[in-house]
Amino acid sequence: MLSNHLQNGIETAKLVWSRIPNSEDGDPDAIGLTKRNDDGNVESLDYEVIENCAYWEEQAQRGKLYVGYCVVVKWFFALLIGLGTGLAAVFINISVENFAGWKFALTFAIIQKSYVAGFLVYILINLVLVYSSVYIITQFAPAAAGSGIPEIKGYLNGIDVHGILLLRTLIGKIFGSIGSVGGGLALGKEGPLVHTGACIASLLGQGGSKKYHLNSKWLQVFKSDRDQRDLVTCGCAAGVAAAFRAPVGGVLFALEEVTSWWRSQLMWRVFFTSAIVAVVVRSAMNWCKSGKCGHFGSGGFIIWDVSDGQEDYSFEELFPMAIIGVIGGLLGALFNQLTYYIAYWRRNYLHKRGNQVKIMEACLVSLITSIISFGLPLLRTCSPCPEADPDSGIECPRPPGMYGNYVNFYCSKDKEYNDLATIFFNTQDDAIRNLFSAKTIHEFSAQSLLTFLVMFYTLAVVTFGTAVPAGQFVPGIMIGSTYGRLVGMFVVSFYKKLNIEEGTYALLGAASFLGGSMRMTVSLCVIMVEITNNLKLLPLIMLVLLISKAVGDAFNEGLYEEQARLRNIPLLESRPKYQMRKMTAKDACGNRVVSFPRVVKVADVVSILWSNKHNGFPVIDHTRNGEALVIGLMLRSHLLVLLQSKVDFQHSPLPSDPTGPKPIGRHAFSEFVKPASGKGLSIEDIHLSSDDLDMFLDLAPFLNPSPYIVPEDMSVTKVYNLFRQLGLRHIFVVPRPSCVVGLITRKDLLMEENEDPATVELQSTSVRLLDDRSPHRDKETVRRNADTERPLLNGLLGQHHAAG
Amino acid sequence: MLSNHLQNGIETAKLVWSRIPNSEDGDPDAIGLTKRNDDGNVESLDYEVIENCAYWEEQAQRGKLYVGYCVVVKWFFALLIGLGTGLAAVFINISVENFAGWKFALTFAIIQKSYVAGFLVYILINLVLVYSSVYIITQFAPAAAGSGIPEIKGYLNGIDVHGILLLRTLIGKIFGSIGSVGGGLALGKEGPLVHTGACIASLLGQGGSKKYHLNSKWLQVFKSDRDQRDLVTCGCAAGVAAAFRAPVGGVLFALEEVTSWWRSQLMWRVFFTSAIVAVVVRSAMNWCKSGKCGHFGSGGFIIWDVSDGQEDYSFEELFPMAIIGVIGGLLGALFNQLTYYIAYWRRNYLHKRGNQVKIMEACLVSLITSIISFGLPLLRTCSPCPEADPDSGIECPRPPGMYGNYVNFYCSKDKEYNDLATIFFNTQDDAIRNLFSAKTIHEFSAQSLLTFLVMFYTLAVVTFGTAVPAGQFVPGIMIGSTYGRLVGMFVVSFYKKLNIEEGTYALLGAASFLGGSMRMTVSLCVIMVEITNNLKLLPLIMLVLLISKAVGDAFNEGLYEEQARLRNIPLLESRPKYQMRKMTAKDACGNRVVSFPRVVKVADVVSILWSNKHNGFPVIDHTRNGEALVIGLMLRSHLLVLLQSKVDFQHSPLPSDPTGPKPIGRHAFSEFVKPASGKGLSIEDIHLSSDDLDMFLDLAPFLNPSPYIVPEDMSVTKVYNLFRQLGLRHIFVVPRPSCVVGLITRKDLLMEENEDPATVELQSTSVRLLDDRSPHRDKETVRRNADTERPLLNGLLGQHHAAG
Repeated sequence: MLSNHLQNGIETAKLVWSRIPNSEDGDPDAIGLTKRNDDGNVESLDYEVIENCAYWEEQAQRGKLYVGYCVVVKWFFALLIGLGTGLAAVFINISVENFAGWKFALTFAIIQKSYVAGFLVYILINLVLVYSSVYIITQFAPAAAGSGIPEIKGYLNGIDVHGILLLRTLIGKIFGSIGSVGGGLALGKEGPLVHTGACIASLLGQGGSKKYHLNSKWLQVFKSDRDQRDLVTCGCAAGVAAAFRAPVGGVLFALEEVTSWWRSQLMWRVFFTSAIVAVVVRSAMNWCKSGKCGHFGSGGFIIWDVSDGQEDYSFEELFPMAIIGVIGGLLGALFNQLTYYIAYWRRNYLHKRGNQVKIMEACLVSLITSIISFGLPLLRTCSPCPEADPDSGIECPRPPGMYGNYVNFYCSKDKEYNDLATIFFNTQDDAIRNLFSAKTIHEFSAQSLLTFLVMFYTLAVVTFGTAVPAGQFVPGIMIGSTYGRLVGMFVVSFYKKLNIEEGTYALLGAASFLGGSMRMTVSLCVIMVEITNNLKLLPLIMLVLLISKAVGDAFNEGLYEEQARLRNIPLLESRPKYQMRKMTAKDACGNRVVSFPRVVKVADVVSILWSNKHNGFPVIDHTRNGEALVIGLMLRSHLLVLLQSKVDFQHSPLPSDPTGPKPIGRHAFSEFVKPASGKGLSIEDIHLSSDDLDMFLDLAPFLNPSPYIVPEDMSVTKVYNLFRQLGLRHIFVVPRPSCVVGLITRKDLLMEENEDPATVELQSTSVRLLDDRSPHRDKETVRRNADTERPLLNGLLGQHHAAG
Repeated sequence: MLSNHLQNGIETAKLVWSRIPNSEDGDPDAIGLTKRNDDGNVESLDYEVIENCAYWEEQAQRGKLYVGYCVVVKWFFALLIGLGTGLAAVFINISVENFAGWKFALTFAIIQKSYVAGFLVYILINLVLVYSSVYIITQFAPAAAGSGIPEIKGYLNGIDVHGILLLRTLIGKIFGSIGSVGGGLALGKEGPLVHTGACIASLLGQGGSKKYHLNSKWLQVFKSDRDQRDLVTCGCAAGVAAAFRAPVGGVLFALEEVTSWWRSQLMWRVFFTSAIVAVVVRSAMNWCKSGKCGHFGSGGFIIWDVSDGQEDYSFEELFPMAIIGVIGGLLGALFNQLTYYIAYWRRNYLHKRGNQVKIMEACLVSLITSIISFGLPLLRTCSPCPEADPDSGIECPRPPGMYGNYVNFYCSKDKEYNDLATIFFNTQDDAIRNLFSAKTIHEFSAQSLLTFLVMFYTLAVVTFGTAVPAGQFVPGIMIGSTYGRLVGMFVVSFYKKLNIEEGTYALLGAASFLGGSMRMTVSLCVIMVEITNNLKLLPLIMLVLLISKAVGDAFNEGLYEEQARLRNIPLLESRPKYQMRKMTAKDACGNRVVSFPRVVKVADVVSILWSNKHNGFPVIDHTRNGEALVIGLMLRSHLLVLLQSKVDFQHSPLPSDPTGPKPIGRHAFSEFVKPASGKGLSIEDIHLSSDDLDMFLDLAPFLNPSPYIVPEDMSVTKVYNLFRQLGLRHIFVVPRPSCVVGLITRKDLLMEENEDPATVELQSTSVRLLDDRSPHRDKETVRRNADTERPLLNGLLGQHHAAG
């Protein structure tokens, strides 16, 4: 038949090796190293080896033992990522707590004498910290600005943003977030920690940074793109686990929010990494308990325990809780919209004027933040302390230099506290702890909370997008818990019940704002449960998340999606757009397809690479009788490598001799490996003489021989899901096929050890466990014999049979 | 070009509607209702509507509001599933606790006077309970035997096993597990609860059972196969959540263990269902606290709290913990192997002899279990009670008729207890609670534990596969915690440290055995954490799970996979087999492909359906100039519907007139809907006259117009992953295409609102955020002009361009 006929035409291509790491194309299962033997079968090398240790291809033939070694290496790296991210998180937390703690202690010491001097010192310390942060970012690591989550999401979905996984970005992220969070800006250190984890994972996978001569050979195991992504996924989860001490939340975050595909083996490894982080963080905290970490120890790592909160909830409380969900959805959507506009303006106008403007902007924001957080509490009159409860261990007002609730700020010395200062003039962790605190009804006045809400919301919007590392989790929790507590206060006074805890409402408010802004679901829910250490509130958290996400979705996309759109990162949403239903695959193809013949003139390659920006090109060969045949996909990056090395150029326009030296042997495997975070080759880097341009290049050994294909009139929604589920980057749209060679069903993929077609005759679509006593089989045989007596359209049917 | 040319040939097919629910094919995104208009574009109807409420296709045009309605219905069903499964779990638990509690109370009351009389009563009660269970199963609901998890896994992976989701199966499962668990057999109620949840979900989705006239019209919303599977996934998660009070574990179980694909929207809905279950169960337990549930209240729902267990662990303890992991892997693999052999023997020899044998077998097992659990403790000498600790509240020996530790059995009355009876002659929950109990060092003697381990392991192996509902979780936990505690005792005596808790080792042992037998990872880990309510032990549980799974994998497959294999359910494992790397898609195609022409003689359809068991047939049409063209996939079940209804038969062998009445209009949409759990139509049910056989059938309106295709030399590993990730059932293997119509990249799928190709010119493979100040663009324009001066292979390249 046709297919057999055509195979003769490409037999030469089948004799050569194709060893380029095809997983560059993002196929989670692309066979990197395929060998085609003489009878045309693909002899793929060890799948496991390719998946894990593509770099050591020379050793691929060693078999099972080597595969085992690779698995061990993989797990060892998961361990390293966990250790690294955990230690980085500990370092950042200890630093931030010490800077902030020292700042507040000093300020409190000074304001005992003079508020003006204290104010100046406070402003100055904040300014220095923020300046150091923005200086590091602008001068040293521009890719470390912002939260980094949209970029990592983009990376894991196949889009490389320049510089996000470099060593300098890691360093900038760590020190930058110490400065920005320590400097009291309205941002958090959680998003940056996710980026930090991803950087650590990527650097470990590369075996260190080449630029800084830190790379060691033996670490260069993970060279395939897929391995790198698996590592970065682990790093992401480790980051969340470290940021919130939430290992399960980390795994779910990596699965739900970051990747669009998953595999159960990867999930297990990701979970292992998260658990390692949890162990590291716990050990560090135990070590710090003895007071070896300075100011750290009383604040620091997030667990805002609400386990002594509200035990039970009554049915009529569900209504105010739903209200919290609605408020969260509205405020979250508004937050996304405002930050989108401001970030758009910044990108297109402000930040184009250079680094000086960025630095000035950040310093100005720091100044405003300092003035508001110091100045506003001064205007509040202090409240008298509640009656002391010796059991709770909470002192009111808290002693100077200590942490906790009931801050005495601009109050008379005896038994008074400033409720606005308690949340505003405090470290973030302490402020949230105070907002979540149970058994403290009437601690805050509605006026203070409202003031704080408005001011902090504005500050958070303005701060977002300045050139410092900035997470949105903690600001979101602060905003949300403020209005949550406001609703809680209203409920307390309205329902006049005493078993209602405002802290519980604050927690729900926090969940609702994060849900309304980030639109995460399961992972956010689990994170909230893990950081509050209270499984009982799970259903309530889900309720507000459901409502706030639904309300927010009515207005705009999630925060990360909006920011990714702004940065031109083409993330695919979880569900296809409405108009895709009416489109066929053919309609969706954007530009003209530019294809290459199998043997192409170098000058043509150069001119085509210059004339468009496509990253993949179909390669089309012709059979002996002139029929065209698509033989594979050639990547731009691989073409550039070939052009640069020149060793494959040939004088003849005929396919290269398959019996000669293997063309791939002229290249080191690593040449084709995409640099993890560098710019990569560009056509501008290629300089060829006119002699070179007249030569030819046989592409057959270097192409991906079996890219995914879809028929031209398949619905785009189907294509969309194919892209997302398999993490693809290119797909060929082809005409409807003219015949079907075969039909694969699940049964065909089952491959029992004892392959006996007679006994394994299952119905693959629906296996029915037939009652063995039924006369089904006999009846069928009888019937089948009867059939043969009838005339069959054998001519017509046979025509289609033959292809099988 | 070729493709344009061919389209003329199938223009008539494009004028008709194809409204069959193509998602029957298991494509998660198959467009059920596609309309092809005159210019050949697919005008798919509302995607959302198709996905959710395929049944109400008449209302498909109503737009957004209707979509919203469908979403609400979807969530409402998730709520119902949660409520239903939660209540079923409560009912089962209360019943089991009451039966078992009453049994032990009565026995203890009688043995105060006579051990022989007590023994007989004990045996009799067990026998009656087990008999009632096995009677229900054999006479009424044969599909309810066993745990049901392999079958549900098969269903969610596209393989229907007859009868697993019927109402009678649900009833059999609920009452059968009450009998078998209450009757003291070595099996648990957790696996059956998963099946129960799945049944409830499926029945709700069908709108009740037709057979029992319980169906109501307004519930018949979810008619598409995909909706049904989503519901069953929710039901599965709800079952786990109810069985272990572990909502997060339930979600992860559904994702990791049961489905091979996932979508984040579904995950959120699954989570919601689990949370509802948690609320229902918690409410019921609160209600029972006041003593309204009889014996229930002190035992019952699983939370074996170990929160007062070991606080810290030292480095040298990791070695014995690793030993536990190894033991778990070995014993688990042995368990799988033994149960596989016994189940194989049962299926092929014992159970073929009819229901009487099944009933006798179960009764015999019950008898042996009763004798062992009553007799063996009699042989033990009693131990003196430890010194009373008034704080712990544990009485030794426990008062008769109460629950708890330190069972007085065949002991002198004063301050003695029987350690073997404490675990053997007790309800499962209490036995596990005793094994997990902290602060009870030296409670059990090594001899007792060893006796219990050997006897219970044997009983569990023998009991598995009898014709009663049987879960493997609780037996696994009992076996594992026994040897775990043994190791713990050894460690206590070896390391001579007092901060080691044997209960912690018992917990690790339980995790290791489940890991070694079921090979679950993340979900098992989370379930163990949730049932012991102790997040601190997470890293240790992971360690033993890692080891036990690795050890077990060295020997055989997981328990569910082994059992699925035994039952001929073709589950696809999470990773492709080794030999697939060396195969192409063409090699994997099992049988000859039988294709249909577009208009086919009825006699041919009948004879082909008789002559093979294929479930999908390619349909091939011919263009006007005789070229063949694959126009779609026809399912056997749809063909059978057409044959049965006969309304589409036509006299002419020409394609039906597209301007006439729409062929699909002659069918109710629901005719094509696969019955959720019935047998469906079979070719044996079709009876046609010889006049009918001479007529023709135009298949074009009824086929799935765009099935997935792969080129014939794609690696089978790639095809395998396509199947798993997309949940497919059929895939067409086609020859290499002769041209590429287009190339779709992520960018093409992004579809901004402001679609301006000039500004959105991104590099889709790797988007680099270009510095706008670079002279890149200008340079390129210059260069591009230069290119036009060079000779291009325009003729060759243009040939392939034109198709785009």
